[in-house]
Order: sequence, then structure tokens, then C-alpha cells
Amino acid sequence: MMIQQAMQALENVMLDSVASDVKTLHDASRHILEAGGKRVRPRLMLLTYLACGGTAVENVLSAAAAVELVHTASVVHDDINDHGVVRRGRPSVNALWGRTFALLTGDFLFTKVYELMAPYKDLNVILSEATVALVEGETLQASAVKENNFSRQVYYDIISRKTAALFRSAAHMGAALAGAGEATIEALRLYGFNVGLAFQIIDDVLDLTADSEQLGKTSGIDLQQGRGYAVAYAGNGETKTQAAVAEQPTDPLTAIKAKMLSRKAIEEAYTQANMLRAAAVASLDVLPESPYKDALVDLARLVVERDH
Amino acid sequence: MMIQQAMQALENVMLDSVASDVKTLHDASRHILEAGGKRVRPRLMLLTYLACGGTAVENVLSAAAAVELVHTASVVHDDINDHGVVRRGRPSVNALWGRTFALLTGDFLFTKVYELMAPYKDLNVILSEATVALVEGETLQASAVKENNFSRQVYYDIISRKTAALFRSAAHMGAALAGAGEATIEALRLYGFNVGLAFQIIDDVLDLTADSEQLGKTSGIDLQQGRGYAVAYAGNGETKTQAAVAEQPTDPLTAIKAKMLSRKAIEEAYTQANMLRAAAVASLDVLPESPYKDALVDLARLVVERDH
Repeated sequence: MMIQQAMQALENVMLDSVASDVKTLHDASRHILEAGGKRVRPRLMLLTYLACGGTAVENVLSAAAAVELVHTASVVHDDINDHGVVRRGRPSVNALWGRTFALLTGDFLFTKVYELMAPYKDLNVILSEATVALVEGETLQASAVKENNFSRQVYYDIISRKTAALFRSAAHMGAALAGAGEATIEALRLYGFNVGLAFQIIDDVLDLTADSEQLGKTSGIDLQQGRGYAVAYAGNGETKTQAAVAEQPTDPLTAIKAKMLSRKAIEEAYTQANMLRAAAVASLDVLPESPYKDALVDLARLVVERDH
Repeated sequence: MMIQQAMQALENVMLDSVASDVKTLHDASRHILEAGGKRVRPRLMLLTYLACGGTAVENVLSAAAAVELVHTASVVHDDINDHGVVRRGRPSVNALWGRTFALLTGDFLFTKVYELMAPYKDLNVILSEATVALVEGETLQASAVKENNFSRQVYYDIISRKTAALFRSAAHMGAALAGAGEATIEALRLYGFNVGLAFQIIDDVLDLTADSEQLGKTSGIDLQQGRGYAVAYAGNGETKTQAAVAEQPTDPLTAIKAKMLSRKAIEEAYTQANMLRAAAVASLDVLPESPYKDALVDLARLVVERDH
């Protein structure tokens, strides 16, 4: 099965998994899944599997679907907490069905992760650790916003957990399912982790620089939440910026945005993302040459170079 | 290990499992767990295990903890949707930490269920099915409230999924871990299911008749949600009640409560709960006599006879 066929099959696995006679859960789950999304996590898993010599990609689809559902569940819950009304170019579940059903739809997607992972035995602990980390990362972020306590270290701790841990688990599972040895698994975990960090840094930058239509989600929210600000800090490392911004009494959104653009913090964020990308690609040296290895190199590049 | 020792050990397994360096998750999880609760689901699982001849109760503790965490997660999310401010005699997580952190704490507890269940391989699918059913039941309930579309059938569908399915899975896992055969597992699943139905019916009745202090949670919420009303319908089977209540334009809470009490619907609910209890106890005939079998009979009785 080629990767494009596998990615199409993945869509069906996900849609089948959320079938329910409870209409709201069925409809809301399909609504968010059919909106698409980049599917970067399952793609990373499938490519890792193939690049490690795996030949039965159909055996990986449920795990790949599980990873994407973890992400999707977190997105649905995130839109409740952030009051996001647009997601993947559509009204968010929260906007269409309201908070109660959005909360339950997110729970439903989380529970479907269990079902999808049930056949994988030993890999369950890998994904569960990543899912715990994701929730911890979201919580650290909400706390940092509430306490206005951002630093570069806090920012990296947040994105390591809320994003990079899931990328890492996807790479781990792909490699493990292909029967890779420990050293290869460890190298690919590092690839996934660094790609995940780069992905989130670019996500936060795009939240500042792109408009909602381009992003397919409500932009500026992450900034309001303080994430974007964290990028500024991660980007230039000057605590003065934090102090300066905190002193801005009016229109903090514009102030932060201007501050970031003027300080070329965004270019610095790109520099960091590209360093992480290079580190990720270097980890792939353990793999033999193959079109799938090339595709993993491409994926790391696209994560940084995308415009939405 | 005696059952009381096992139940104490269970507390430690649960508390250990929610340890996190993310302070809010750590504190909020301990807050809701240390508040206690009846622990009826893990108790049912441990007793089932022992009654089926299991002798290594320490091997069951993580699964029992997982079942209780599924319930606890749903309670934390339920208090967001129902605006519950008191739970287990304490301020709810929602009341103390706010909606965002309550949502994340519930997610955290759900993700810890994965971790706890990781060692159990084939049993994962049993618990995941029950967890899916729980979320479906909560959603059906929210839909029924929203659409004012309750009937006895809808009520039983709701409580079958949101409560009885988890009790059934607890009995199933206890029996399976003790090495019971298919027929015994099936009988104990039925025991769990019927005890779960009786438990929820009594829960809904107590929500009408007991005060908040007695219940340890905000009372009347379930009634406002329409659940309590569903009990009325389940209790007396008269569609007229539904119509009559719907016609009450003022103070519907008091009106429903008065209507139920006057029609002796509560006594009828107890009759149903006792029938379910008898059916549950009859299922235990497959088991040899033992103190644990007696304890399962007692548990079914206490579920109906409790006052909170």
C-alpha cells in the first residue's frame, strides 16, 4: 500500500471508529474529522514504519488513527477553553453544538483511542504516556497564562509535552511495529520529538502572522492565551520584552504583535525551528536510504516551511 | 489480602497514579480522590475476583483503580456541564479551580486510565467499550434534556450506558482475572449490569429526596437536568405525568418533586431497584458459597438501601 493509499485508508479507519447510534457524537466527531487537518502525526507514524522496513501498513492504521484522535480530542477541548469558533476551516464543535456536547465529543474521541489501541498490547503504554504529557502540557500552559509566568524554559516545557511527546510516540510506534531495534527506535523518537518542537514553534508563529482564513482556525487566540508571547520569548530570549509588554496597559494584542515583529523574533523562531529540523534529519542517519526516509526528510522541511 | 486491606491499597494505587509535577493536575486529582466516594465499582470488581477464586488481589488493583478513575473523570466533567459546586462533601474541582482546569483534570484522569490498564492486554477492550458507553449515555442524557424527550425507554438506555455498562465491565474484569469460564463471566456481567441499573435509579431518587449535605454533592441538579424527572417516568410509567409536569409554567423543580412524591413514584422506583437487585443476586448462583459471594449479595442490597 502506498502512502497516499494508506492515508486515505486512515480516514476510513477514523470515521468508522467514531460511528455511534448517539447522533450528536456521531455527527460532531465526523464534523471535526471530515474537516481534514494536516494529519502530520499519523503520516509521520506511517512513514516511520515504512522507512524502518515495515511492509504491512494495514496493521499500523489503527494506531495511526489513535494518535490522530488524541490530537483531535485535545483540539475539541482546546476550543472550549479558548473559545475558538473556527477550526480546520469550519465552525468548531463548540460553536456548532455548544460546550456540553463539545466536552462530551472530546471525551468520546479519547475513549475511542482506547478502542483503537486495544490490539497493540505493549504499545499502549507508549501512547498513554504521550497523552498524559499532552494534558500536562495544556495545563502548564493554562497555568502560565493565568500566572503570567512565561520564560523560555516554561515555553519549551509546555511544547515538549503538549506537542512533541505525541510526535515522539508516533515515531516510536511506527518503528516498533516495523520491528526496529532499540537504537533505531531511540533515534526515531528523537526525530519525532524535534519535528514536534519545530511544528509547534511554527504553529505559534503562524498564529501571529497568518489570518484566520489562511489558518483555518481562529487566529490570535494562542497569542491571547500567551502562547504567542511565549514564542516571542523563545525567539529572542530577552526578559526585557516580557517586562516591556507587561507594561503596555492598552491593546496588549497589538502591542505584543508589534513588539515581536519589530524585534525580528519571528525570524529567530524560524532559526530555532530550522535547527530542530536539522537535528531531526540527522537522527535519520540510522535508516537505510529509501523513498520513505526521503519523505521523512521532506516532512521535517514542510513542518517548518508551511504557511498554514 | 482481605477486602478492607485491598480497598486501602486501592487508594494508594489511585493516588500514586495521578502524581504529576504539574501542580494543578496533581492537586485537583488528589482533591477529588481524597474526598473518598463509595468506591462501589472497584469494590465490586475485587469481590467478583475473590468470589471467582482469585487469590492474588494485588494483580487486580490497577484495573480496579482504572475503573474508579473512569468514574471520577466523568464526575469531574459532569460537574462542569451541570455547574455542580459540591462533590463528595467538598467543593467540586470546577468550583475550586475553574472550568479550564476542571476540563483538563478530567482529561488527565482519563489518560491515567490508559496507563493503569496498559498491563492488562485483552481486558483493555472491555473497559474501553464501557467507557465509550458511559460517554454515549451522558450525551443521550444531555440530548434528552435539551429536546425534552424523555420516556422510560430513553431513561433505561441512558442509565444502561452511563452507569450499568461500567459496573458490568468491572464484574467482567474481576471474573476474567480470576480465570473464570465464559458462563461465569457472563453471569457476573449480568450481576454487574443489574446492580448498576439499581444503583443509578436509587442515585436519581436520592437526588430528589436527600439534601446536599447528606448526598455530599449538589442535590437537585440531576432533577434540573431532567434525570430526576426520568426517574418519575421510570417509576410510574405514566406518560400523563410527563404532560402534567410539562404544563407547569412556574417553579418546575418544586412541581416535579411534589408530583413525584404524591404519586408514590419513588416507592415504585424502589420496587424496580429491588427487582433488579433480586435478578443480580440470582446471577450469583453460578458461584460457590464463600464470604465474598455473600459480600456481593450485601453489595447489591446496600446499593438499594443506602441513604446517600
